[in-house]
Amino acid sequence: MNTVLDRIKICYIGGGSRNWAWVLIQDLAFEKEIAGTIHLYDLKESAARDNEIIGNRVMAENNRGRWTFSAGPSLEDALIGSDFVFISILPGDFEEMAVDVHEPEKYGIYQSVGDTAGPGGLMRALRTIPQFREIARAIKTWAPDAWVLNYTNPMSVCTRTLYREFPEIKAFGCCHEVFNTQKLLRTVLEEAGAAAGTINREEIKTRVLGINHFTWIDRASWKNIDIVPYYAEFAEKYADKGFEAPGEKNWENDYFSSAERVKLDLFRRYGLIAAAGDRHLAEFCPRSWYLANPEQVREWKFSLTPVSYRIENRKKLEAKAAAYRDGKEKLLPVHSGEEGLRIMKALLGLGNLVTNVNLPNKGQMPDFPLGPVVETNAEFSRDNIQPLVSDGLPGDIRNLTLHHLYNQEGIVEAAFGEDREKAFRVFLNDPSIQTLCRDQARELFASMTAKTLPPRHFALGG
Amino acid sequence: MNTVLDRIKICYIGGGSRNWAWVLIQDLAFEKEIAGTIHLYDLKESAARDNEIIGNRVMAENNRGRWTFSAGPSLEDALIGSDFVFISILPGDFEEMAVDVHEPEKYGIYQSVGDTAGPGGLMRALRTIPQFREIARAIKTWAPDAWVLNYTNPMSVCTRTLYREFPEIKAFGCCHEVFNTQKLLRTVLEEAGAAAGTINREEIKTRVLGINHFTWIDRASWKNIDIVPYYAEFAEKYADKGFEAPGEKNWENDYFSSAERVKLDLFRRYGLIAAAGDRHLAEFCPRSWYLANPEQVREWKFSLTPVSYRIENRKKLEAKAAAYRDGKEKLLPVHSGEEGLRIMKALLGLGNLVTNVNLPNKGQMPDFPLGPVVETNAEFSRDNIQPLVSDGLPGDIRNLTLHHLYNQEGIVEAAFGEDREKAFRVFLNDPSIQTLCRDQARELFASMTAKTLPPRHFALGG
Amino acid sequence: MNTVLDRIKICYIGGGSRNWAWVLIQDLAFEKEIAGTIHLYDLKESAARDNEIIGNRVMAENNRGRWTFSAGPSLEDALIGSDFVFISILPGDFEEMAVDVHEPEKYGIYQSVGDTAGPGGLMRALRTIPQFREIARAIKTWAPDAWVLNYTNPMSVCTRTLYREFPEIKAFGCCHEVFNTQKLLRTVLEEAGAAAGTINREEIKTRVLGINHFTWIDRASWKNIDIVPYYAEFAEKYADKGFEAPGEKNWENDYFSSAERVKLDLFRRYGLIAAAGDRHLAEFCPRSWYLANPEQVREWKFSLTPVSYRIENRKKLEAKAAAYRDGKEKLLPVHSGEEGLRIMKALLGLGNLVTNVNLPNKGQMPDFPLGPVVETNAEFSRDNIQPLVSDGLPGDIRNLTLHHLYNQEGIVEAAFGEDREKAFRVFLNDPSIQTLCRDQARELFASMTAKTLPPRHFALGG
Amino acid sequence: MNTVLDRIKICYIGGGSRNWAWVLIQDLAFEKEIAGTIHLYDLKESAARDNEIIGNRVMAENNRGRWTFSAGPSLEDALIGSDFVFISILPGDFEEMAVDVHEPEKYGIYQSVGDTAGPGGLMRALRTIPQFREIARAIKTWAPDAWVLNYTNPMSVCTRTLYREFPEIKAFGCCHEVFNTQKLLRTVLEEAGAAAGTINREEIKTRVLGINHFTWIDRASWKNIDIVPYYAEFAEKYADKGFEAPGEKNWENDYFSSAERVKLDLFRRYGLIAAAGDRHLAEFCPRSWYLANPEQVREWKFSLTPVSYRIENRKKLEAKAAAYRDGKEKLLPVHSGEEGLRIMKALLGLGNLVTNVNLPNKGQMPDFPLGPVVETNAEFSRDNIQPLVSDGLPGDIRNLTLHHLYNQEGIVEAAFGEDREKAFRVFLNDPSIQTLCRDQARELFASMTAKTLPPRHFALGG
Repeated sequence: MNTVLDRIKICYIGGGSRNWAWVLIQDLAFEKEIAGTIHLYDLKESAARDNEIIGNRVMAENNRGRWTFSAGPSLEDALIGSDFVFISILPGDFEEMAVDVHEPEKYGIYQSVGDTAGPGGLMRALRTIPQFREIARAIKTWAPDAWVLNYTNPMSVCTRTLYREFPEIKAFGCCHEVFNTQKLLRTVLEEAGAAAGTINREEIKTRVLGINHFTWIDRASWKNIDIVPYYAEFAEKYADKGFEAPGEKNWENDYFSSAERVKLDLFRRYGLIAAAGDRHLAEFCPRSWYLANPEQVREWKFSLTPVSYRIENRKKLEAKAAAYRDGKEKLLPVHSGEEGLRIMKALLGLGNLVTNVNLPNKGQMPDFPLGPVVETNAEFSRDNIQPLVSDGLPGDIRNLTLHHLYNQEGIVEAAFGEDREKAFRVFLNDPSIQTLCRDQARELFASMTAKTLPPRHFALGG
Repeated sequence: MNTVLDRIKICYIGGGSRNWAWVLIQDLAFEKEIAGTIHLYDLKESAARDNEIIGNRVMAENNRGRWTFSAGPSLEDALIGSDFVFISILPGDFEEMAVDVHEPEKYGIYQSVGDTAGPGGLMRALRTIPQFREIARAIKTWAPDAWVLNYTNPMSVCTRTLYREFPEIKAFGCCHEVFNTQKLLRTVLEEAGAAAGTINREEIKTRVLGINHFTWIDRASWKNIDIVPYYAEFAEKYADKGFEAPGEKNWENDYFSSAERVKLDLFRRYGLIAAAGDRHLAEFCPRSWYLANPEQVREWKFSLTPVSYRIENRKKLEAKAAAYRDGKEKLLPVHSGEEGLRIMKALLGLGNLVTNVNLPNKGQMPDFPLGPVVETNAEFSRDNIQPLVSDGLPGDIRNLTLHHLYNQEGIVEAAFGEDREKAFRVFLNDPSIQTLCRDQARELFASMTAKTLPPRHFALGG
Repeated sequence: MNTVLDRIKICYIGGGSRNWAWVLIQDLAFEKEIAGTIHLYDLKESAARDNEIIGNRVMAENNRGRWTFSAGPSLEDALIGSDFVFISILPGDFEEMAVDVHEPEKYGIYQSVGDTAGPGGLMRALRTIPQFREIARAIKTWAPDAWVLNYTNPMSVCTRTLYREFPEIKAFGCCHEVFNTQKLLRTVLEEAGAAAGTINREEIKTRVLGINHFTWIDRASWKNIDIVPYYAEFAEKYADKGFEAPGEKNWENDYFSSAERVKLDLFRRYGLIAAAGDRHLAEFCPRSWYLANPEQVREWKFSLTPVSYRIENRKKLEAKAAAYRDGKEKLLPVHSGEEGLRIMKALLGLGNLVTNVNLPNKGQMPDFPLGPVVETNAEFSRDNIQPLVSDGLPGDIRNLTLHHLYNQEGIVEAAFGEDREKAFRVFLNDPSIQTLCRDQARELFASMTAKTLPPRHFALGG
Repeated sequence: MNTVLDRIKICYIGGGSRNWAWVLIQDLAFEKEIAGTIHLYDLKESAARDNEIIGNRVMAENNRGRWTFSAGPSLEDALIGSDFVFISILPGDFEEMAVDVHEPEKYGIYQSVGDTAGPGGLMRALRTIPQFREIARAIKTWAPDAWVLNYTNPMSVCTRTLYREFPEIKAFGCCHEVFNTQKLLRTVLEEAGAAAGTINREEIKTRVLGINHFTWIDRASWKNIDIVPYYAEFAEKYADKGFEAPGEKNWENDYFSSAERVKLDLFRRYGLIAAAGDRHLAEFCPRSWYLANPEQVREWKFSLTPVSYRIENRKKLEAKAAAYRDGKEKLLPVHSGEEGLRIMKALLGLGNLVTNVNLPNKGQMPDFPLGPVVETNAEFSRDNIQPLVSDGLPGDIRNLTLHHLYNQEGIVEAAFGEDREKAFRVFLNDPSIQTLCRDQARELFASMTAKTLPPRHFALGG
């Protein structure tokens, strides 16, 4: 572990990103305790080059962070000597994602996101796992001691792949869904009388457990206040009509927003706080509950995000990137609230941090099998992560969750074994696919694999 | 453990049975090595009295077995001093079972049996568990060292209840579904050329694993012959058209028969031999596979057994019982092929026996949680049972199975806690109920509980 | 959990203590965020009355802490309504402890402390467990929701007893041995060049694992500095001659000091930092290593603390207590460095805290059986403790440790079952007793139990 | 799995054996159901050649078994196409074994056998593991589907090595110590009045658990008779004076006999029947119990087998072998009572068999870690072994046993890692070595390794 705090090297795989990469640039602009270089690596090298220019400009303009950005075509160069590796890639392109999300609609299967559970999540996994195996091998060869932060979905499957390919890897998965839930808990307290703006998100302490995007909070507090009773009141008040946050974005005009009805409904069912967006949560539940058809989705006040929207949005981001690159617009440094930087600093020894994170289960989820990736709190300290042992999930949620966890294990095995039949059997076990008869399921599987799995990535046996 | 082999005492709870009780009488008629008394206890005392007469007459007429039957109203008397306790009861009556099976049909949920999985199985469990708790307490008080053979469904839940109420109980569950599968394997060998009638069912060696009624065989042999490749050929030949055993009974005229299409289909999916009747297997699978609607059931060539048939049949059996009792007809001694007697003798030290049995998991299913009841092979020896460690189920079957296992655990917890809401949450997690929206599920649950759960048996809180 | 921060109630069992009770008084004198009452309960009521007077005087004189002390003869009164329960008792008296420590010397078995491992620890356990069962039952009845901080040795066995008697108890064990090791690590850094006095003990971050008094640190850092390489240098330098801290107290004139030779020797053997005093560590190792005879102990530069010294010292403390009580001397408020108060505040929601603590293993020691009490780091937050999952101990230390852990389990079982023969079998398994032939062991056991186990506390069967 | 029962191929590694090889020849002479070839492989090829001649002669003379023996220098030839592989080798020679057994005597450590536990067992393990790794690799390459029967000591460590090197191997360890105990149980029944000669050893049913040479029986019966109460009487009668079997061999004139005092003493301590010879059992206990010095050994009425005796005996066996080879003496076919042949037949499908066997723990010892080799009952059936789940050992025996089990794990790790320091740390943890101070232990370790570990077999690092 590097202890020369002004010569940190970060390798950013997917460094052409116009989302996390910009967040990182913005956060680093404020950073004074550590400094170094960020090597941006991307299959689309020009995008990485843009970010090199953007990053260096932000540093130059704000003279606080002392970081140098560079982009290049060699993953080896990017990795060698790295203290940290970020992975934030889009496996395939939005064309493949359109298949993930919209092909199943022909069979009456609707997906609000389509990147984690359901047929879309499984297909995305099949496409991503071979890439993550390559990445894991590269890290094993060139940066075996680096800490690896994964931001790519499907989070559990990708992180599991890294460990399966290179068991000694020091990797974990970061996701901000829990933070959004903590913000909602702040809102709950404000609804109950706390003065607006007095509570920081970090002060909301939550006991996190479960798996990514079907994550739960079984204890929540702010200082000496137990938040759960207030949340119960909040659920009673808003579960039926929905809670619409003030501001411009709401579920009717924003594909990523919701009225929290799914979350509050799950609380009324199980007494635990679901800690992910409604769009993700719905996909883990029996499809008859929230995703039976587009009308039901509307009733529950969330959205089926069309991939066409993502394609549109990408064009805007490309234009934005060009504007930043060419100096026509400025990327302003703001604190993102993301914890990537705080986690890196904790791993360097600059202040321990307890937060939620995705890691292979080695006991933190006592009622789950050891090995698969789960999400709980963990303490980050110098060159060390230790997950906190949770009390486990109540039986009913555990049963819903394990079904997906075992399917995730199955899809990883199928992908590692390049075994098409095994992948299909896992597909059959997905709760939404279970509503189809086998012939339909076979047809859908065949059409999705044909359109999204290029032979080079997943040479499925026959 | 009694070692005076001619003074064995058996307590038969549900001793008015016109099925297992008669089988036992018939088997005991041949038995020369052990002798003693059978105390028949039944809430319907007159039926037990009938069996007392029938049993004693069979013994008198055949002068081989030396057993005395007696019936009486006191469970305490029946239990005290017992070496063995048989439990074979019908929880509730066929009126309740009619609700279990047919009420869900109003919501498009079809059940071929309705006594193990699905809404019917769960309701039957809620009704049975309180009775089994009472039985366990009685055994704890009056016959704590007796070996307890349970024949009652839902098998796993009932056996689990006995252990949960009285952890030191020496109980296990017996089911003949695996034997039927072994007979099918014999047929497979005969189809492949073995001379008919030369193979005994007991010579077919099978490695059994799973849970009751969703049991599997991952290795099968007869002498030095591996049966699996022959079964694979058999499956290819008959999976589509079905295999109709010669003889009178087939799926079109007998509610309990099938053309084995489900079993062979599952083999083609998973490569393992499913070891229960198609009617049971189908209920553990996603409902879209075999039980989507009555037409689909017909295509798969098995039956939705109507409870009206059972009610009809009971009348015939009542008449039969009266005829036996009054000496108008004779109950002839035949070897049943059931293993109850052989198991008792093994427990007395008269020859070790390896067979399949339902027991709490203490390691025999290494990939399942410890505690819940599973079905595997076990060795019976003097005052001892030891389950055999299996290799575990393949991931996809394991996932299907664990879903039910955890639901069974949930329903036991709900019943022990007398917690209506918890029971409903388990109900919601049943794969067939998952096809309903919550309001429908709530409605169905309410109507089923109202009709089948008398307050004295399950004083649901809430 | 009480949220009225100025009405906290603490019940102190063993409240006549002249050690921890005074530390608590001193710490509370500084405390401004919480306030309330401390009920001192002690079998020796006059000692508790003294502390009532002392405590109230310290509060009055320093007008910072707002706490009221009271003493009384009723445990019920002391417990009812308590938010926290401290347990710090001496099981039996020093007369019994003299037997624990010195009787085995007649057989060549030397003990440096005699309160945790070895014959002394086992006898003390037999004496203490019945008292802890009573305490656990009292807490179950009168303060089931209170958090229970145990300070009594043998720590693991006492804490285990609380959970075994009342599984829902919210108890944990606190011990300062790790803190002393952290102070040594600070010294190591100072030896390596860090300016003296610049490093706080709390800034030394350690990854703790093992069992109480045979606790280990497998990772240690200060800010971005890895301490382990410096510790290795320190061990090379001092392992042979010993490290004598500057100041008055050293191993030759103070029974509680050592020259750290055992600790450094264990580091050279195993590469891990032993995190308890040499006197404790030596008792967990094969007796030939450090405790073969008094001469060897002197070579290793630590002491066999004679109980006569404790008796002497008690007289001094009694005089001190009288002087405090009568106002002839002042108990000055100083920050103790103990974490009891910080832990209470964390449990009230006033700042999360990660520190080492003794808890039943529920996964934090992955290679240890679940249930027995282990020592690792844990996070304290509002009404919650979550242990951190460790990486487990290296095989050789694990083997040494498990031997004691299983013996501790055995002694708890023997005491719960009041089974003298079982207790003797555990005694036989102690590594130091294993050096005796059985007749000698039997004789020693008989004489120790005769002298230390009053029939009312441990009605041994047999 | 071969199903052509008259073309079985057995590869015998260590085929020059003058013990097991002859037993196998004698047993095969009676065998009518299976036939084939035995390839004898031995580093000492001439001994294998002798056995080739002897084996073929026995077959020719008795015209019952139809087996051909052949010897040759190529392990590859011997393995290819094998259905079964026997491993029965002497790692190193008796010169090395003399060091194992007698070098520690210089330090007051006496060993009755010196091949399993204690310093001798550990040294033998270090020497054997590299050879077993080679054998495992050869089997992986040339006979990966063969069933492997290991007869070599140290049994647990050798079998563990096979699995660690080639996890898919179908290997198990056979040992006859339990059979001898079953014969003693027969004697117990005869002492209690059973007519001599009426009970077969195979009719004695025992529930076996533990590890090889420290194996236990917690349930024993003959037909419907519980043997344990008779054993308890027997123990009371003979524990003090010893039981001397009628006949010529007794502990005073035969190095391999004992008066069973250790076994009966252990029964009185723990209530379980120890199922190995006293010479083995004593080595697993604290050395002060039975092996403190030669006088104590005499009191307990067993022997310290000197290696000089083995060397003498070998000469006699060599002469015997020459006589058999040259036709001057006849090796007569007798049923050995060993189960190797019955096990092979069971694996071929010719009759299931339950017997005790050494296998990696996959749940059969529920309170032991998974992976290490344990000894329990298992069912052998066609191409299948399934261990029977035991109830686990009582706490005190478990603690004694686990100490050795973890040391065995440690020595395997040290040997695989070729790590001298790790091997020494394990050595230090042996209960007999724990009586030495570290310098003595280091000296003994150095001298033993120098004399017994040729660099080619164990290139210890460091």
